[in-house]
Amino acid sequence: MKITVIGDSACSAEEAKLAETVGALLAERGVTVVCGGLCGVMEAACRGAKSEGGMTVGILPSQDSSMANSWVDISIVTGMGEARNVAVVKSGRAIIAIGGGYGTLSEIAHALKSSIPVIGLNTWSLSQNGVEDDSIIRVHSAAEAVDKAIALAARRKNHEITTFRLHQGQ
Amino acid sequence: MKITVIGDSACSAEEAKLAETVGALLAERGVTVVCGGLCGVMEAACRGAKSEGGMTVGILPSQDSSMANSWVDISIVTGMGEARNVAVVKSGRAIIAIGGGYGTLSEIAHALKSSIPVIGLNTWSLSQNGVEDDSIIRVHSAAEAVDKAIALAARRKNHEITTFRLHQGQ
Amino acid sequence: MKITVIGDSACSAEEAKLAETVGALLAERGVTVVCGGLCGVMEAACRGAKSEGGMTVGILPSQDSSMANSWVDISIVTGMGEARNVAVVKSGRAIIAIGGGYGTLSEIAHALKSSIPVIGLNTWSLSQNGVEDDSIIRVHSAAEAVDKAIALAARRKNHEITTFRLHQGQ
Amino acid sequence: MKITVIGDSACSAEEAKLAETVGALLAERGVTVVCGGLCGVMEAACRGAKSEGGMTVGILPSQDSSMANSWVDISIVTGMGEARNVAVVKSGRAIIAIGGGYGTLSEIAHALKSSIPVIGLNTWSLSQNGVEDDSIIRVHSAAEAVDKAIALAARRKNHEITTFRLHQGQ
Repeated sequence: MKITVIGDSACSAEEAKLAETVGALLAERGVTVVCGGLCGVMEAACRGAKSEGGMTVGILPSQDSSMANSWVDISIVTGMGEARNVAVVKSGRAIIAIGGGYGTLSEIAHALKSSIPVIGLNTWSLSQNGVEDDSIIRVHSAAEAVDKAIALAARRKNHEITTFRLHQGQ
Repeated sequence: MKITVIGDSACSAEEAKLAETVGALLAERGVTVVCGGLCGVMEAACRGAKSEGGMTVGILPSQDSSMANSWVDISIVTGMGEARNVAVVKSGRAIIAIGGGYGTLSEIAHALKSSIPVIGLNTWSLSQNGVEDDSIIRVHSAAEAVDKAIALAARRKNHEITTFRLHQGQ
Repeated sequence: MKITVIGDSACSAEEAKLAETVGALLAERGVTVVCGGLCGVMEAACRGAKSEGGMTVGILPSQDSSMANSWVDISIVTGMGEARNVAVVKSGRAIIAIGGGYGTLSEIAHALKSSIPVIGLNTWSLSQNGVEDDSIIRVHSAAEAVDKAIALAARRKNHEITTFRLHQGQ
Repeated sequence: MKITVIGDSACSAEEAKLAETVGALLAERGVTVVCGGLCGVMEAACRGAKSEGGMTVGILPSQDSSMANSWVDISIVTGMGEARNVAVVKSGRAIIAIGGGYGTLSEIAHALKSSIPVIGLNTWSLSQNGVEDDSIIRVHSAAEAVDKAIALAARRKNHEITTFRLHQGQ
């Protein structure tokens, strides 16, 4: 199973620590970590995953793989700039967002648009006309983020299988 | 000059009215209206622009132009799904956001990431850890939105020209 | 109607002359010229179109519009690098290819994949296992290229309308 | 190291056999197989790689991973249609093209544009104005394709490291 971790390439030490723990916990549970492949939160999540022998995928905006952080196992070179954010979120069965700037916000939005569950750790809050949008599932620790993400990703997988069987008349 | 109008393909009558007025006012000022080319806010903005003899551009997610609304003069067929949102915002010198769902939110985020001014009419509010992000410039009427957007777009153009001249040693 | 002109950003004087004439003839016939927005063949086609008061669209690979040639009326800023080649071809109802490098070859291929007619002037020839692929319609003058492109684009449009009506039960 | 295998989703039995052997030989040499993730040549290459315990990556055009063939380990969901072809080629250090239609031709072109070596097995031949373009390196067996691809990919890697060191003043 693949879960995407998103967050800024410039992050605080606290965010990096969270991301590293998230990456390690995902790897312990056998989950492949997908991210945007750059530094900051992305690098910390990959480093954490590798510390537990996990697998990491970095989907890069650049024209070659030289920008990939050192803990990316599989670098996908898109050459598409920010448009790669769409592939970053669609390639995960759930998203864990840690802090983040506007790039992260765009990824949260693309994920919600595609009904991919988003788990948030100290990340954006959204509202419209004074009404809070509660689509981002708020958690308060790396462990809680990973538990939620895996549970929602598994449920989504089962739903897809059920839907597929219904389509096949099974 | 090109200004992008963003908003949902399913919008309220009030939002459609706002979008139509925005489109008309932009056209009156000689501004080309760029949008995602579909229905809802996009269609209303194009219809407004055409009512004043303006020019409209629709940057479509689809594989052909059959999804373009009837008031699109120039349809750009990307075949790239939501990744086209990046082109929608980068092609405008300023953005006017009217209401909107998660697709619109992704466009706001991509615009702010690229330092393109975003003017908001009843659209998303953003905050992080209890701190409001005031990057979206809030306005309360179509006229105010158009005034602000044109002023900021013009300032951005002048800044680019100045920067370019500095680079050329002029 | 929009027709796309493709060719290299570094082209011979002869290719530039051909592209300029193609652009002028398209504009005379009321056709909007779509291209990749850069220099070489793209610039010459736009310059030709503007000499006859036509409309030009440049779909750029870059992050801003500063790379657009001076004869582009509507610049589409994709920020997607070569992936924009797909939008360049899909946005035209037919393609005229003049000379060209590997970028042009990719555009020819994307067009043929989408069943968009490609008219070729001194451009690539394709074969596989010794068998010539004759999908590119070879012509020998700018006038012939424009005649063919408009005829095929019109036929394609009628086909779409017919198909649409059949789908609607008309 | 990652090497990309390209070819049609509808292929002959002979092409499938070639692709399967290519995939197996790449896996034996420890190379990760990148492809477009669909059926035909892509599926055969992945099946071959998995038969030798290799790793496979499929970069999909679709909105979800349901179209991935059964031998894809890591599916990248781009939702970008044919624009994903750019990522397919840029993510490999060399390309092996087997047969192929226009989608494959677009990938060959994007690779050559980016100076990524292309090894061809019964694939497209290119010429311009009667002059053959010999950029595609022709081979006649799966083993020869894999040898060439790995040799060129390694040389490219060394070149990049040298260039990087020169930039760093080392």
